[in-house]
Amino acid sequence: MARSIGATAVAHGSTGAGNDQVRFDIAFRVLAPDLEILTPIRDEGLSRDAAIAFLQQRGLPVPPKAGAYSINRGLWGTTWGGGWTHDTWAGPPNELVEPPADSPAPTEIVLGWVGGLPVSLNNEVLEGPELIRRLGDLGLAYGFGRNIHVGETALGIKGRIGFEAGAALLLIAAHRELEKLVLTRWQTFWKDQLARFYGDRLHEGHYFDPALRDIEAMIASSQQRVEGETRVRLMPGRFLVVAARSPHSMMDRSVATYGEENRLWSGDEARAFARVSAIPEVLAARVAGRHRQTADSR
Amino acid sequence: MARSIGATAVAHGSTGAGNDQVRFDIAFRVLAPDLEILTPIRDEGLSRDAAIAFLQQRGLPVPPKAGAYSINRGLWGTTWGGGWTHDTWAGPPNELVEPPADSPAPTEIVLGWVGGLPVSLNNEVLEGPELIRRLGDLGLAYGFGRNIHVGETALGIKGRIGFEAGAALLLIAAHRELEKLVLTRWQTFWKDQLARFYGDRLHEGHYFDPALRDIEAMIASSQQRVEGETRVRLMPGRFLVVAARSPHSMMDRSVATYGEENRLWSGDEARAFARVSAIPEVLAARVAGRHRQTADSR
Amino acid sequence: MARSIGATAVAHGSTGAGNDQVRFDIAFRVLAPDLEILTPIRDEGLSRDAAIAFLQQRGLPVPPKAGAYSINRGLWGTTWGGGWTHDTWAGPPNELVEPPADSPAPTEIVLGWVGGLPVSLNNEVLEGPELIRRLGDLGLAYGFGRNIHVGETALGIKGRIGFEAGAALLLIAAHRELEKLVLTRWQTFWKDQLARFYGDRLHEGHYFDPALRDIEAMIASSQQRVEGETRVRLMPGRFLVVAARSPHSMMDRSVATYGEENRLWSGDEARAFARVSAIPEVLAARVAGRHRQTADSR
Amino acid sequence: MARSIGATAVAHGSTGAGNDQVRFDIAFRVLAPDLEILTPIRDEGLSRDAAIAFLQQRGLPVPPKAGAYSINRGLWGTTWGGGWTHDTWAGPPNELVEPPADSPAPTEIVLGWVGGLPVSLNNEVLEGPELIRRLGDLGLAYGFGRNIHVGETALGIKGRIGFEAGAALLLIAAHRELEKLVLTRWQTFWKDQLARFYGDRLHEGHYFDPALRDIEAMIASSQQRVEGETRVRLMPGRFLVVAARSPHSMMDRSVATYGEENRLWSGDEARAFARVSAIPEVLAARVAGRHRQTADSR
Repeated sequence: MARSIGATAVAHGSTGAGNDQVRFDIAFRVLAPDLEILTPIRDEGLSRDAAIAFLQQRGLPVPPKAGAYSINRGLWGTTWGGGWTHDTWAGPPNELVEPPADSPAPTEIVLGWVGGLPVSLNNEVLEGPELIRRLGDLGLAYGFGRNIHVGETALGIKGRIGFEAGAALLLIAAHRELEKLVLTRWQTFWKDQLARFYGDRLHEGHYFDPALRDIEAMIASSQQRVEGETRVRLMPGRFLVVAARSPHSMMDRSVATYGEENRLWSGDEARAFARVSAIPEVLAARVAGRHRQTADSR
Repeated sequence: MARSIGATAVAHGSTGAGNDQVRFDIAFRVLAPDLEILTPIRDEGLSRDAAIAFLQQRGLPVPPKAGAYSINRGLWGTTWGGGWTHDTWAGPPNELVEPPADSPAPTEIVLGWVGGLPVSLNNEVLEGPELIRRLGDLGLAYGFGRNIHVGETALGIKGRIGFEAGAALLLIAAHRELEKLVLTRWQTFWKDQLARFYGDRLHEGHYFDPALRDIEAMIASSQQRVEGETRVRLMPGRFLVVAARSPHSMMDRSVATYGEENRLWSGDEARAFARVSAIPEVLAARVAGRHRQTADSR
Repeated sequence: MARSIGATAVAHGSTGAGNDQVRFDIAFRVLAPDLEILTPIRDEGLSRDAAIAFLQQRGLPVPPKAGAYSINRGLWGTTWGGGWTHDTWAGPPNELVEPPADSPAPTEIVLGWVGGLPVSLNNEVLEGPELIRRLGDLGLAYGFGRNIHVGETALGIKGRIGFEAGAALLLIAAHRELEKLVLTRWQTFWKDQLARFYGDRLHEGHYFDPALRDIEAMIASSQQRVEGETRVRLMPGRFLVVAARSPHSMMDRSVATYGEENRLWSGDEARAFARVSAIPEVLAARVAGRHRQTADSR
Repeated sequence: MARSIGATAVAHGSTGAGNDQVRFDIAFRVLAPDLEILTPIRDEGLSRDAAIAFLQQRGLPVPPKAGAYSINRGLWGTTWGGGWTHDTWAGPPNELVEPPADSPAPTEIVLGWVGGLPVSLNNEVLEGPELIRRLGDLGLAYGFGRNIHVGETALGIKGRIGFEAGAALLLIAAHRELEKLVLTRWQTFWKDQLARFYGDRLHEGHYFDPALRDIEAMIASSQQRVEGETRVRLMPGRFLVVAARSPHSMMDRSVATYGEENRLWSGDEARAFARVSAIPEVLAARVAGRHRQTADSR
């Protein structure tokens, strides 16, 4: 956009205190190293009041007063800032903890998944944003998905914030239950390890590190069989993923059932498996034992 | 014990179908390679009914009938097996989902921690087992800590089970909030990665792998400053960790506060940090850009 | 092939002692669970002599006597087994250690790479196998790429073997030098971590674990820019990768040069970067310091 | 020292271009946040010539002219900088590649190890620094341990340098061979993963991150049984670790020998181990197969 209008600079309104300045600065520098980056609020250390006054003097729109605590709404949810977040021993406001008095009665929803992505709600096919909006509304109605987050910031200090993210938390939980049916142990292990790094790196503004492209390729590969349905029970203040099924399920009764008579192995084979699996520990114990004996005999 | 009574063999009652046989076999083989391992139920493929009949014929005590689904209670909680667990699209019984009708009113508890371990409840110093028992009773009263687990088994198939583990889930959540205040980002990152492996390896019966001793040393090191208090709100069907504090907190207001005027860095320093942090991505983009240009100019 | 000839079973000649039986068994079971697996040597515990006698009685070809130590040649090199490998304090035979007396004079070769794969030798485009054969012949002529390997086996014990793998070691070393020019730090970090797991898992016969497909996707993504040339000096008994270049090099002088006057950052920016980078450690030290002071003042 | 002499500031002579400034700045800020950090060469962007002139004017000692390329010697070896390092296609000077013409005849040395540390050379007990000095002298005499390093810098660009580090490379290689005898597969796996991170983090100046204390605890635990002897053959231009032994060796013949008749498992047990180990892949294949069949039958 900057280039399309012949701009020679881009600006952002971040202060010098937070995460966003880092994300904007890195993104601009990578995408448009030729454009100057203007950051008046950071450069002049403008206070929030000074910035608002500046806007008012020029008759420019001013964001509504935040009141007791600053609230930021978005598609994915709401963050609650304010004084209480700075004292880690202070609890959140009541409306963050208590479900709405008029929460609906418990109900169950069914999410459909293809390629690791949610594609339908109660068999109604929906675009991602609409699906998230619907789940977010359910989260607001039932008061689930609220919590307090303490985490690292891009500048190395800790941050604390309250949030309401019903859609995100419900999707994460339901997606994981579906993955459990179709991924092998090591697929889940490595996906989790790299996902954690990916999230940290992205949070710190390093989306453009090619390492994230590599991790995306791995995750995309892991999601090919993450297809099926998840059933989630919604209750005042919480949700519970109660069921999942997939055409690729490795837990399909026709494939294998734990703790039941089955033909995948015999008792003798299980014994032999345990015997061979134990060998490294057996050898380590033999060595240690040999030394204990030597020590004893001294 | 086996040696103290001059036994030449040890026995366990596991079937050939589950995880425990692997754990017992490996442990016995490592600890007492000289003792024979007897596993009559596995060896003869005895059915549950046959085993019960065998006990009854000899007037030996028989575990109470499990009824609709098999329930195993222990200090850490209860597992719920039974037919519904074998069909991943079948939901759990109601008593696993709904909090007790007579749940107490919401309340808050304070847990005290030293060296990463919980040591007190509401300022009453308690031994671990008693602390767990008290939290477990609260979990039963409020009906929190119930869920369904789908996971890998030691023999490579998937397993599904319902559980009630209020004490465990509450301790894990509260401990994590305290860790967030005192561990650096990389301490948490690596502890999480190795803890996951440790749990998997332990679950599969490999407690005696010296690798677990190494990981324990790392985790012990990370827990030295995990000391303080956590406040947890208990509500019907759920709990919420609402506050934490530690004498070692890196989020202490006197140390640093996110998003506030602070003296740890200036706006200019934040800009410079972002500029330098971006260099690898900038270089990667320059290289890519150079090639795009070449391609365009063709 | 088994199916194409209507076979109802497949056979392999592995003993019960080594790695290969595990690889064959797992592969056959995954690819053809309907075919019986016949392993006469393992089943009957046939000794090497008995197996040879069996072949001779039937006038079937017998592998040439291995003499002092068993040698297995292949495209990728040669393994040297035999008595000395079982005593870890015993050294290898001289011909494994000393370069040939008639080694050619030192020379340099240039390898060309595209997409992480070697495609040419001294500007002659070659198919992979032919390229490996040529490099292997150079390894034999100069006597480089010989060493002793001690490693884990699929059955949990350690194994030791001598080997000659000039082509493999040279390609690995040259490839790594090229990667250093085009991958970011985190690309290399994660690729190495997963490559190590991939190699172990493959070695243990688990090629068909879908987790390996995911890792392959990640590695394929990382290799897109691994293109260019590497120059390797060959000398009696060793080689040295002396130079590398790539059109995607992030070390191109036009992009950035270490330790020289450059415009990627100023001294002030470097100072600020260090100041901000230090914050987590500064906070940890402040907390620790505060406690030292408290302790001192007691 | 600064405090002992009542200094109110500390200084270092790093330029704004390299790694060391970051290490000094972070270390000073963590250890002595109260002391000012003076960096005249970086602040005033002094050229090397200007700095030398400044010293000469005041009759202060000037480091000897480096000549064609800058050479830095230390206990651990020598780094070779200079113009050729900036062009990745330029090879190193001959004296970095060719062993000395008067290299001694090949010989073997024996290193003794306790707790993962080298403690003796040819049965002579030596302090660490003296041991390193002796091995470094051998490296110079034989011309081994020379190579070119391309790596990341603390500021995000790549750096290239020639080096001579015979003692370091020989100790690393010999130590690894000893570890192979006494560590289990997973001990080595995790130690390697964390060692890589540890090295990167340390290199970037973050020694004071408590995460490094945690990793040190893990590595210390892993080294308890790394005890024994390693035999290394020294030859012109290279070395080869030919043998290792340890009282804790898991490869001791009395414990287990690969590929030989042994009593750790039978052929039947190996088959059963392979059958059970294959289960996750078998299930994944069944699921995939079921879908192939469905697809085929369409």
